[in-house]
Amino acid sequence: MVEESKDRESTVGLPPGTMRYIGPHKTFRPRAELVHYSEGKATVLDATDVCPPLPAGGVIWMRVRGLHDEGLVKRVGEAFSLSPMLLEDVLNTGQRSKIEEHEDCLFIVLKSLSYEPGPTGKGEVREEQVSLVLGDNYVLSFSEGEKGLFEPILQRLVKGRSKAHQLEADYLFLMLVDTAIDHTFLALTRLGDEIEDMEEQLIEESLRADLAGIYRLRRAVLAMSRSLWPLREVVSILRKPDPTFIREENLVFVRDIYDQGMQAVETLEAFRQALTDMIEITMSSVTMRTNEVMKVLTTVATIFIPLTFITGLYGMNFRHMPELGWRYGYYAALALMALVAGGMILYFKRKDWF
Amino acid sequence: MVEESKDRESTVGLPPGTMRYIGPHKTFRPRAELVHYSEGKATVLDATDVCPPLPAGGVIWMRVRGLHDEGLVKRVGEAFSLSPMLLEDVLNTGQRSKIEEHEDCLFIVLKSLSYEPGPTGKGEVREEQVSLVLGDNYVLSFSEGEKGLFEPILQRLVKGRSKAHQLEADYLFLMLVDTAIDHTFLALTRLGDEIEDMEEQLIEESLRADLAGIYRLRRAVLAMSRSLWPLREVVSILRKPDPTFIREENLVFVRDIYDQGMQAVETLEAFRQALTDMIEITMSSVTMRTNEVMKVLTTVATIFIPLTFITGLYGMNFRHMPELGWRYGYYAALALMALVAGGMILYFKRKDWF
Amino acid sequence: MVEESKDRESTVGLPPGTMRYIGPHKTFRPRAELVHYSEGKATVLDATDVCPPLPAGGVIWMRVRGLHDEGLVKRVGEAFSLSPMLLEDVLNTGQRSKIEEHEDCLFIVLKSLSYEPGPTGKGEVREEQVSLVLGDNYVLSFSEGEKGLFEPILQRLVKGRSKAHQLEADYLFLMLVDTAIDHTFLALTRLGDEIEDMEEQLIEESLRADLAGIYRLRRAVLAMSRSLWPLREVVSILRKPDPTFIREENLVFVRDIYDQGMQAVETLEAFRQALTDMIEITMSSVTMRTNEVMKVLTTVATIFIPLTFITGLYGMNFRHMPELGWRYGYYAALALMALVAGGMILYFKRKDWF
Amino acid sequence: MVEESKDRESTVGLPPGTMRYIGPHKTFRPRAELVHYSEGKATVLDATDVCPPLPAGGVIWMRVRGLHDEGLVKRVGEAFSLSPMLLEDVLNTGQRSKIEEHEDCLFIVLKSLSYEPGPTGKGEVREEQVSLVLGDNYVLSFSEGEKGLFEPILQRLVKGRSKAHQLEADYLFLMLVDTAIDHTFLALTRLGDEIEDMEEQLIEESLRADLAGIYRLRRAVLAMSRSLWPLREVVSILRKPDPTFIREENLVFVRDIYDQGMQAVETLEAFRQALTDMIEITMSSVTMRTNEVMKVLTTVATIFIPLTFITGLYGMNFRHMPELGWRYGYYAALALMALVAGGMILYFKRKDWF
Amino acid sequence: MVEESKDRESTVGLPPGTMRYIGPHKTFRPRAELVHYSEGKATVLDATDVCPPLPAGGVIWMRVRGLHDEGLVKRVGEAFSLSPMLLEDVLNTGQRSKIEEHEDCLFIVLKSLSYEPGPTGKGEVREEQVSLVLGDNYVLSFSEGEKGLFEPILQRLVKGRSKAHQLEADYLFLMLVDTAIDHTFLALTRLGDEIEDMEEQLIEESLRADLAGIYRLRRAVLAMSRSLWPLREVVSILRKPDPTFIREENLVFVRDIYDQGMQAVETLEAFRQALTDMIEITMSSVTMRTNEVMKVLTTVATIFIPLTFITGLYGMNFRHMPELGWRYGYYAALALMALVAGGMILYFKRKDWF
Ligand SMILES: [Mg+2]
Ligand SMILES: [Mg+2]
Ligand SMILES: [Mg+2]
Ligand SMILES: [Mg+2]
Ligand SMILES: [Mg+2]
Ligand SMILES: [Mg+2]
Ligand SMILES: [Mg+2]
Ligand SMILES: [Mg+2]
Ligand SMILES: [Mg+2]
Ligand SMILES: [Mg+2]
Ligand SMILES: [Mg+2]
Ligand SMILES: [Mg+2]
Ligand SMILES: [Mg+2]
Ligand SMILES: [Mg+2]
Ligand SMILES: [Mg+2]
Ligand SMILES: [Mg+2]
Ligand SMILES: [Mg+2]
Ligand SMILES: [Mg+2]
Ligand SMILES: [Mg+2]
Ligand SMILES: [Mg+2]
Ligand SMILES: [Mg+2]
Ligand SMILES: [Mg+2]
Ligand SMILES: [Mg+2]
Ligand SMILES: [Mg+2]
Ligand SMILES: [Mg+2]
Ligand SMILES: [Mg+2]
Ligand SMILES: [Mg+2]
Ligand SMILES: [Mg+2]
Ligand SMILES: [Mg+2]
Ligand SMILES: [Mg+2]
Ligand SMILES: [Mg+2]
Repeated sequence: MVEESKDRESTVGLPPGTMRYIGPHKTFRPRAELVHYSEGKATVLDATDVCPPLPAGGVIWMRVRGLHDEGLVKRVGEAFSLSPMLLEDVLNTGQRSKIEEHEDCLFIVLKSLSYEPGPTGKGEVREEQVSLVLGDNYVLSFSEGEKGLFEPILQRLVKGRSKAHQLEADYLFLMLVDTAIDHTFLALTRLGDEIEDMEEQLIEESLRADLAGIYRLRRAVLAMSRSLWPLREVVSILRKPDPTFIREENLVFVRDIYDQGMQAVETLEAFRQALTDMIEITMSSVTMRTNEVMKVLTTVATIFIPLTFITGLYGMNFRHMPELGWRYGYYAALALMALVAGGMILYFKRKDWF
Repeated sequence: MVEESKDRESTVGLPPGTMRYIGPHKTFRPRAELVHYSEGKATVLDATDVCPPLPAGGVIWMRVRGLHDEGLVKRVGEAFSLSPMLLEDVLNTGQRSKIEEHEDCLFIVLKSLSYEPGPTGKGEVREEQVSLVLGDNYVLSFSEGEKGLFEPILQRLVKGRSKAHQLEADYLFLMLVDTAIDHTFLALTRLGDEIEDMEEQLIEESLRADLAGIYRLRRAVLAMSRSLWPLREVVSILRKPDPTFIREENLVFVRDIYDQGMQAVETLEAFRQALTDMIEITMSSVTMRTNEVMKVLTTVATIFIPLTFITGLYGMNFRHMPELGWRYGYYAALALMALVAGGMILYFKRKDWF
Repeated sequence: MVEESKDRESTVGLPPGTMRYIGPHKTFRPRAELVHYSEGKATVLDATDVCPPLPAGGVIWMRVRGLHDEGLVKRVGEAFSLSPMLLEDVLNTGQRSKIEEHEDCLFIVLKSLSYEPGPTGKGEVREEQVSLVLGDNYVLSFSEGEKGLFEPILQRLVKGRSKAHQLEADYLFLMLVDTAIDHTFLALTRLGDEIEDMEEQLIEESLRADLAGIYRLRRAVLAMSRSLWPLREVVSILRKPDPTFIREENLVFVRDIYDQGMQAVETLEAFRQALTDMIEITMSSVTMRTNEVMKVLTTVATIFIPLTFITGLYGMNFRHMPELGWRYGYYAALALMALVAGGMILYFKRKDWF
Repeated sequence: MVEESKDRESTVGLPPGTMRYIGPHKTFRPRAELVHYSEGKATVLDATDVCPPLPAGGVIWMRVRGLHDEGLVKRVGEAFSLSPMLLEDVLNTGQRSKIEEHEDCLFIVLKSLSYEPGPTGKGEVREEQVSLVLGDNYVLSFSEGEKGLFEPILQRLVKGRSKAHQLEADYLFLMLVDTAIDHTFLALTRLGDEIEDMEEQLIEESLRADLAGIYRLRRAVLAMSRSLWPLREVVSILRKPDPTFIREENLVFVRDIYDQGMQAVETLEAFRQALTDMIEITMSSVTMRTNEVMKVLTTVATIFIPLTFITGLYGMNFRHMPELGWRYGYYAALALMALVAGGMILYFKRKDWF
Repeated sequence: MVEESKDRESTVGLPPGTMRYIGPHKTFRPRAELVHYSEGKATVLDATDVCPPLPAGGVIWMRVRGLHDEGLVKRVGEAFSLSPMLLEDVLNTGQRSKIEEHEDCLFIVLKSLSYEPGPTGKGEVREEQVSLVLGDNYVLSFSEGEKGLFEPILQRLVKGRSKAHQLEADYLFLMLVDTAIDHTFLALTRLGDEIEDMEEQLIEESLRADLAGIYRLRRAVLAMSRSLWPLREVVSILRKPDPTFIREENLVFVRDIYDQGMQAVETLEAFRQALTDMIEITMSSVTMRTNEVMKVLTTVATIFIPLTFITGLYGMNFRHMPELGWRYGYYAALALMALVAGGMILYFKRKDWF
C-alpha cells in the first residue's frame, strides 16, 4: 500500500480515463492469448506483441495475464473498442469489485482469493484482481498473476469436450466467474482448517493459547470479508430479471454463482465469530487464573506475615522483656502463632477461597 | 470441514452441474422409497436399485435417505427430469438453505437441527440437510441420515387417516417442511433447558461458573443461528403473493411455517443474549473478587510490614543501641507498633476498605 | 420453558392445526362470557359451559379468561367458525405477537406485560398472551389469566356511558388493544422507577453497587424488548392504507396505538443503555480502585522491604561483623535506612503515585 | 419519571382522547396570546382567560406557554376545532416527536433541547416539548415553559420587518420549527465545548481523568440522541413531494430544516464516539499503570525476599551453626546475597521489565 | 468548534437565508477569478472587487478561494442569481456534504480531506469545504483555503489541451468533484502508510505499543469517516437515471466518482478495524504480562515467606527453646526449609505455572 501511496500522489488532478498501472511491482512479462472456437474447435494464438485480426464467426476469448504492461492492455482495449474509463479500472489493482453494464459490453471486476504460506511460513491472504468483459461474441479476461487462474477452462475448450450450448460467449464468461469463486472457496476451506486446528490447540492448553496466531487468522478473515463484500452487489445485479448480456438458459449458472457468493460471506462470518470467541475465552481464562494466583499469594502471605511479625517480636534484643524469661514462653508463642494461623485459615475457608 | 477441504481442492475449475457428494463419510447404504397414494390409499415400493415406473394419477412421494450414493440420486433425478444444477446442490451437504423456483418444480434446501449428547456426553448441534422438490403431482425428499425425519408423515399416509384436501402434493410438501422445523424446535427447547440449568448453577455458585460450558452453549446457539438465518429468505419467498406451486387454500400453512421460523430466530437471539450476560456476570464477579482479594492482602501486608520492620530494628546486634538498655524500651516499642498499626487501620477505614 | 420442552417433544410431526394448550400449568377454571350491546344497552351472559345462541344485531364481545381448557376454546371457535390454525395459535402461549388478515376476520396476538414483585420480593416481568379476533360484528378476546385485563372496558359498556360511534366492533377491538398496551406502559414506568433508584444508589456508593440487581433489571428490559419487538410489525400492518376491518374514522386510534408502541420500544432502548452504562461505570470504578489498592501495597512494601533487609543484615549472628562493634554503627544503619526510604519516596513522587 | 408513573397508573384502561396533563409539576400560570397579522401589521391579544373571536382575513398565531392548565388547552382546541386525540398528545409532555397529517391541519410534536448548568452546577440536558399545528390560515404553538422559545419571531412580526411572502401561515410554521432547532443547535455546541474541555484535560493528566464526568457527558449525548431520533421521521415526511400544507415556494425551508436535523444527528454520533474513546483510553491507561505498579512491586519484592531469608538464616540462634564462627562468614554471606540479587536483576533485564 | 459555538449563539431565531460566515478565523484575502473558455481558448479575469460582465457563449467558471468575505460571496451569488439559502450554506463551513437540485442549478457541498503534519509534528486531518454550483453554461466553485484545490484543472484549460467534448460545463463540474476526491484519496493513503508503520512497530515491541498514537490514528479515521459518510447520498443522487444537469455521455464519469467514493468508505472501514485490533492486541498482551508478573511474584513470595518464618522462629530469644541446643538443630531446620520449599515448587509445577 505504501507503493500505491506514491502512485496516488502523482495522480491528483489527472483527468479520469488516464491509463496507468497501479499495483505492486512485478517482474515477469505480461502476455495475451487469443482463443477462438467455433463448431467445437478451439485455436490459441499469441497476441502479446501484435493483436492478430479478430476472426469472424465463433467466439473469441482474449486472455491477458499480467497487468503491468500498459501498452498491452491499451492495445487489447483498442482491438475491442473499450472505453478508457474501463481500461483505467482494469489497470488499477486497488479497484473494488464491481459490475457495470456498458452500452455494448458487461464489465466485472472480481478478487480471486488465495490463502497460502507466506515468506514467514504462515498463511497469508492474497487477492488477485480479475477483470472480465463480456461482449456479443467475445470475452476478455485480465488477471494480475503470471499463472493463469483459468487453465482448466482453456484445457476443456482445447480438448473440445464442451457441449454445443456451452460454446457461447456468455457461458464462457460465467465459467470464468465460477472458476474465480472456486479458487476463493479453496482459500476459505484452507483458512477454515487452520481455524479448527487453532480451536483444538486452545482446548488442549488454554492459557498458552497463541493469541498472536488467533489475531493473525482474524485479520485474514477480515481481509477476505472486505474483498468479498462487494460481491453481493455484483451478483445481485447479475441476478436481476432480463439481464442484457446473459441468455436466459444460462441464468441457472448465475443463480449458482449467487448461491456460492452468499455461502462464502456466511462462512466468513462464522469464522469471525469463532475467532472472536477464541480470543474472549483466552482472555477470560487469563483473568480467572490471575485471580487464582492472587488468592494463593494472599493466602500464604496473610497467614505467614503476622506469624513472622511475632517471631520478630521475640527476636528483639531488649534487655527487659519478661516473656523471654518465662518457662513456657516459647510454647506460649508457638500457641499464639497456631491460633493466628488457624484464625486466618478459618477466615479464608469462610470466604470460600479454597 | 477438513474432509470438505479435500473435496473442495479437486473441484476448482469443474463446470457447474458436476454431481459429486460433498459431506462426511457415511457407512450405511442409502435407500429410496416410492410412496404413491390416490383416493386415500397409499402404497410403498422400494426404489433403491431400480426406479419403478411412475404410476399415473394420484400423488407420488419419492423419499431418499442417505446422499452418499451419487448413482442413486442421479437415477432419481433422471426419473423426474431434474436439472444437474439442482442435483449438485442436493449432493453438497454444505449447501446453504435456499429456495428456488424452477420452471416445473419448486426446490427447497433446509437444515433440520438436532441437539443431542455427543461422544463426550455433552450436547452437540447436528444439522441434517433436507432437500425437497415439489412438482405438479410429486414430492421428492432427500435427507442425509439413515433414519428418516419423515416417519410420522409416512405412517399417517399409510394408515389412510388424512382428509381429502390433504392428499395433494403441495400439502405433503408443506407437511415435510413443517416436520423438519418441528425437529428444529425440539432441538431449540432442549438447548433452552440446558441454558436454564446453567443459569441456575451460575446464581448458586457464581465464581465457579462453568465458563467453558457457557461458551460451548453459546457456540451451539451461534451454529443454530447460522443454520436458521437463510430460513427467513426461504419463508419470505414462500409467502409472496401468487406462489406458483402452492394452492391458495394451503397458504395458511405457509404462514404457519413463517411464524415458526421467526419464533425460532427470536428464541435463538434471546438465548444468545442470556449466554452473553452469563459470561459478563461471571467475569465481572471475578474482577470484583480479585479486588477483594487484593484488599485483604494489602491490608494485612501494609499493617504488618512496618511492624515487622520495627521488630527487625530492635533485633539488630549492634553493640551500642541505647534503646535496648532502657527500662521500658520493650514497652515503648510495643506502644510504637500499636500506634503504627492503629494509624494504618484508621487509614483503611477512611478509605472505606472494610 | 422446561414444561414447554416436554409439550414440544410430543408435537414433532403432528399436522398443523392440532389444538393443544401449550403453556404453564394453571389451576383456576377458564371462563367465557358473552357481552352483547346494541343501542347503548349491554348484557352479559355466561358462556363457559354452553355457548348461548348468538344474538342478531348489535355487537358481540366474547371474552375468554384462561386458555387451559381446550374444549372451551374449541367451542368458542366453532361458534364463530374460526379456522383450527388460528385456534392452535390462541392455545399456544409461546406464540409470538403477530397480526393476520383472514378471509372474514382480523387476528392479533399480543403480549400484555406486567412488572410486579415475584416470590423473592424482587420485580419480575410477566407476560400475558392476549389474542383478539375482530369480525364483522363481533370481537373475541382470549387471555391467559383469571383476572381479566379488560374489566374497565366492560364496566364502561355496562354503565352505558359510551357514545354512539363507540358502539361498533372495530372501536371495541381497538380499545382492547389500547388497554393491553396501557398495562404494558404501567410495567414500563414501574421498571423505570426501579432503574432510577438503582442509579441513585450507584452514585451514592459506587463500588458496592448491586451488580446482580443491575443485571436482573437488564434482563427484565431485554425480556420486555423481545416481547414488544414484533409489535412494530403488528402496528405497521394495522396502519397500512385501506385496512379491511377498521373503519376509516377509527384510524386515528390506530395511529395512537402505533405512537405508543414506538414510545415503548424507544423507552426500553433508553433503559437498556442506562443499565449497560451502570454496569460499565461499576466495573471501571472497580478497576480504578484495584489500581489504587495496588499502589498502596506497592508503596508500603517497596519502602519497607529493603529496610527490613538491612535490619536482618545486622541481626545476623556472625562472630566477625566489624560494623556491629562500631561506636556509631547503629546510627549509621539508621541513616542508611533513612536514605533508602527517602530515595524510594522520591521515586514514587516522581512517578506521580501519591 | 416517578411522577409520570403515578399519572400512568390512573390512566390504564381510559379511552384514548382523554385530556390530561402528564408532566412535571409547574407553578407559573400558563398563558395564551393571539397574534394576528395582515398586510404587514401585527396585533397581540391576551387569550388566557377567554379566547377572543378569531379575526377573518390575515394569519392567526395562537401561542400557548405552559401546558399544565388543561382547561386553557381545551379552550384553544375548541376555538380551532382540534380533535381530542391531538390535544391529548399536546398535554402529554412524554409524547415522542412526530408528525401527523390530519384532515384540516398538520400537527408536529418536537423537543427543543437546551444544555444548561443544573442545581449541582453541572450541565444538564433539558427538553421542552413544542407542539405546532398548521391550518389554512392559522398556526398554534404549545410549549412547556414560561419563557417562550419564539420571542424573536414575535418581535420580527410586531416590528413589521417581514417581507410579503413571509406573511403566510406555512412560512410562520416553518420559522417556528427552525427556531426550535436553532435552540437545539445551541445546546449541541455547548455540549461540544464541554467535551473538548474534557478531552484536553484527559490528555494533560490521563490517569486522573474525571471518569464520572465523561459518563455524565455521554448520558447527555445519549439523551439528546434519543430526543432527536424521531426528528428524521418528521423531516422525511415534511420532505415528501406534494406536501399538502406547505406551499411549494417554501419547500426550500423544509430542505434547510432537514439539513440541520441530519447535521445534529451526525454531530451527536461524533460526540458519542469521542466520549466512548475517552472512556476506553482512560481504562487502558489504568490497566497499563497497574501493570507498571505490579512490576515495581514484583521486582523489589523478589530481589529482597530471598536476601531477607538469608539474613534470617544467619540470625537464627542455634548453638551449633558452623558458618557463624567462620572468619569470613559475614563476607561470604554478603557475597551470596550479591550473587542472588545480581541473578534476579539479570532475570528481570532478560524479561525486559525495565 | 468553540468559535463556532459563539457564532451559533447569535444566530438563534434568525430567519433562514441570513448570509453569515461561520468558520475558523482566517487572515488572507479571499479572491474570485472568472475563467471563460470557448472553442478551446480560455481567459482568466480577476473578479475579486467587481464582477466583470459575464461573456455570452462558451463556458464560465467562477472560482472563489476563501469564504470569509461575505460581500464577495454575495456579489458572486447575485451575478448568477443564486438563492440566499444556497449562499448561506456556502458560507457555513460546518455544512454537511449534500447535493441539491435547484430549479436552474445543481448544488453540491463536499469536504476535501487532507492529512498533514500539524503543529505538534503529528498527522492531522483537515477538511476543506468545497461548494460547487452547476448551471446551464457556468460552474461556480467556492473553497475555504487560499491555495486552490483546482490548479491542475485550470492549467489544463489554459494550455488548451482539452478535447472538444470536454469543453462543456457539466464535464468541468465533474472534473472538479473528481479532483476534490483525488485529494481525499491522497489523505487516505498517507493515513494508511502511518497505520502500517504503527502495525509493524506493534509487532516488534508489543507491550510498549504507542497506545496514544493508535488512538490518535483512530480518531483521524473516525473524523474522515464522518466527513465521507454523506458522500454516499451525494453520489447516489448523481447516479439516478435521467439526471437533469449532467449530459448522458458524461454519466460514465459520475459512475467513476461513485466507485471512488465507495472505495474510500470501505478503505476507512478497513483502517478502523485494523486500529481496533491493534488496541485489543496491546491490551490483551498487557493483561497476559500482568498475569506473568503476578506468577513470578507469587512463586518467589510463597516459597520464601514460610522459610523466612522458620528462620524468624529460631531467631527468637526465648531462654527455653530446646531445639536451639540440639546438636543437629541447625541441620534439622535447614532440612525442614528444604522440604517446605520443595513442596511449594512441586505445587506450582502441578499448577503448571512454569
Ligand atoms: Mg492493509
Ligand atoms: Mg483525477
Ligand atoms: Mg490489489
Ligand atoms: Mg462452482
Ligand atoms: Mg449450486
Ligand atoms: Mg463460535
Ligand atoms: Mg464449524
Ligand atoms: Mg466450478
Ligand atoms: Mg453439512
Ligand atoms: Mg408445526
Ligand atoms: Mg400457528
Ligand atoms: Mg438476558
Ligand atoms: Mg407439526
Ligand atoms: Mg407465555
Ligand atoms: Mg415461552
Ligand atoms: Mg392509550
Ligand atoms: Mg396520542
Ligand atoms: Mg445512559
Ligand atoms: Mg387507554
Ligand atoms: Mg418532557
Ligand atoms: Mg419522559
Ligand atoms: Mg436555521
Ligand atoms: Mg441551509
Ligand atoms: Mg473519536
Ligand atoms: Mg434560524
Ligand atoms: Mg469546516
Ligand atoms: Mg464543524
Ligand atoms: Mg479520479
Ligand atoms: Mg474508474
Ligand atoms: Mg483487523
Ligand atoms: Mg486487520
